[in-house]
Amino acid sequence: MIYFDNAATTKPDGECLKRAEKYLYNDFYNPSALYVEGYNINLELREARKNILSDIADSEKFELVFTSCGTEADNMAVLGGGRRGNVVTTAGEHSAVFSAVNELKQRGLEVRLANLNPDGSVNLEHLLSLVDGKTSLVSVIHVNNETGAVNDIVNISAAVKAKNAYALFHSDGVQAFGKIPFKLTGNIDMYSVSAHKIGGIKGCGALIKRKNLVIKPQIFGGGQEKGLRSGTENVFGIKIFEYAAAKKCAAINENYVKASKIKSAFLGGLDSGLFTVISGENSSPYIVCLAADGVRGETVLHEANDAGLIIGTGSACSSNEKKRFSRTILACGIDENLADGVLRISFSPENSVEEAESAAKLLNKIVSNRKRIMA
Amino acid sequence: MIYFDNAATTKPDGECLKRAEKYLYNDFYNPSALYVEGYNINLELREARKNILSDIADSEKFELVFTSCGTEADNMAVLGGGRRGNVVTTAGEHSAVFSAVNELKQRGLEVRLANLNPDGSVNLEHLLSLVDGKTSLVSVIHVNNETGAVNDIVNISAAVKAKNAYALFHSDGVQAFGKIPFKLTGNIDMYSVSAHKIGGIKGCGALIKRKNLVIKPQIFGGGQEKGLRSGTENVFGIKIFEYAAAKKCAAINENYVKASKIKSAFLGGLDSGLFTVISGENSSPYIVCLAADGVRGETVLHEANDAGLIIGTGSACSSNEKKRFSRTILACGIDENLADGVLRISFSPENSVEEAESAAKLLNKIVSNRKRIMA
Repeated sequence: MIYFDNAATTKPDGECLKRAEKYLYNDFYNPSALYVEGYNINLELREARKNILSDIADSEKFELVFTSCGTEADNMAVLGGGRRGNVVTTAGEHSAVFSAVNELKQRGLEVRLANLNPDGSVNLEHLLSLVDGKTSLVSVIHVNNETGAVNDIVNISAAVKAKNAYALFHSDGVQAFGKIPFKLTGNIDMYSVSAHKIGGIKGCGALIKRKNLVIKPQIFGGGQEKGLRSGTENVFGIKIFEYAAAKKCAAINENYVKASKIKSAFLGGLDSGLFTVISGENSSPYIVCLAADGVRGETVLHEANDAGLIIGTGSACSSNEKKRFSRTILACGIDENLADGVLRISFSPENSVEEAESAAKLLNKIVSNRKRIMA
Repeated sequence: MIYFDNAATTKPDGECLKRAEKYLYNDFYNPSALYVEGYNINLELREARKNILSDIADSEKFELVFTSCGTEADNMAVLGGGRRGNVVTTAGEHSAVFSAVNELKQRGLEVRLANLNPDGSVNLEHLLSLVDGKTSLVSVIHVNNETGAVNDIVNISAAVKAKNAYALFHSDGVQAFGKIPFKLTGNIDMYSVSAHKIGGIKGCGALIKRKNLVIKPQIFGGGQEKGLRSGTENVFGIKIFEYAAAKKCAAINENYVKASKIKSAFLGGLDSGLFTVISGENSSPYIVCLAADGVRGETVLHEANDAGLIIGTGSACSSNEKKRFSRTILACGIDENLADGVLRISFSPENSVEEAESAAKLLNKIVSNRKRIMA
């Protein structure tokens, strides 16, 4: 079986699971407890916080708040950061940001959506034209979860701050963290990450935020996470996240090269007469978005599934929305006929070039058969 | 080592962990994915939902929303259910409810707190006097997390509804679920539960709600949990929760008897000249709250810890609030001198009578030594 839906979730890293097992079987104490066993777990959480932070940011300038997932981190940034005036985001956000800004609209804020380029990256000129003195928050996804387009958030955040130094800048980094070599810069106020996209487990994410930045918590209670996120901490999930992040970030460059080779092998093996590649040249090596004109993506997905290849048709999260077409794909300017055929193939460094070649061959076969039947 | 802080968190059940391990190592797929492996995980979540629900409620009348913890479930109920007029709760709530109603106060709602009886249960007469036609939500903790007082929420909810049929009734059932034999009745609209208090793991809880009851989600995104709680589901945590809940609920009566024996042995072994027991006669057999007059609880906790006994001084969650006295304990009418000495001893069916006897002896020794030193 070939697993090529790593953008939806990754297989947890066996080595990291093993290392963290003691937090299930032995060191299960409540990190808020006052006895030494509890306090030691608290220290373990501090260690995890420090280590994950150091993978991506200067710990002097940033801090990390653990959340239950990337979606919660995005919500914390958007609902906590977008408090007045208008909020500017893109037409290519993950539903966690998209739905959260919709909630802000319900609360009376104005929401402005920047157009996308055909590859799914944001049209920077349009984005900047939407930012004004009343903008309280700008949120731009780092790596688009459907097309893999990489937004240059270092430059985008600098350009936003040049227009309005008081606007907060957030980025959903869920598909970037541990994959795209990158460090947070001073113009980025908040950055969301998730564990289960890089070999951690579901139920754990984090919002990295600029120190001293005051945002309103969204979950209230016992005051965990310096009051920013109450609730007993998911110690097991957090420790695996720490280990997986360290592993992925230590090998980020070689993994990038490996993923690039896998992606090239996959694209090279595809019959270009059958598929339109939506992902751009400079997109993440971990994601390929393509479409088979006139053949429904879901049909291809199921046929591939039967033949032992697991792929996606876009964001797994959006499958609950029960909409036929992806909002992001349509915003790329793709017509509905092609949007119907969209497939998302997403890699992990654990995949191989051979798998990519087999997958391309199989997809060629499935689509050409379908076209023959329909002809 | 004797672990008597089971109200803070329990050791995860080894059998349940083993059963759920496959969701870490093999069945790791995203439950929103369309291929068969993802869909199967979705079915597993449905199964967990159905099974946990059936442990405590009529599945025809209630439904279950998975959350990341009991705190999030409480927040969902309070922030989602308390939307106008006034909200009535008790002075003995867990900080998850207490802080959430404080947030409602910030949002302009009136918050009314009912007094407690000396054992920590709510003064029903006072509670009912606070409920009027403008009450949108009443929240009463089922088993008080510090004193173990059991509120008769079946009767309380009926009395509340008799005064205002439109007021929603919520109860934090975190210290009751899987411990106190109980089924939800029609007057209870929402009920919060948590996995790690009954042998599950941290990072998983649920809000059980009356079907057709419309509450506003607090986390927005991909539309998981029928749109009520977005974010990729914590499959591993949810499945362990299912298994642990089934195990605890199947043995709920015999465990209740066992915990009662442990509690009796503990109380019987205590030197009554040294300790004041705050928990009432009819409190949960899983929790004993007591105080050593003039001896700081934290001092006793640390000395016990050194000697191999783990106990609490109250809610672990409130340790982050850095307040010397427990809000709940003061509301029981305990003076500050005694409140300073409060200890919470909490059992699990995995504990033994022998452990209870040893713990009582040790606490007698620690406190009498302290008193001798101070005399």
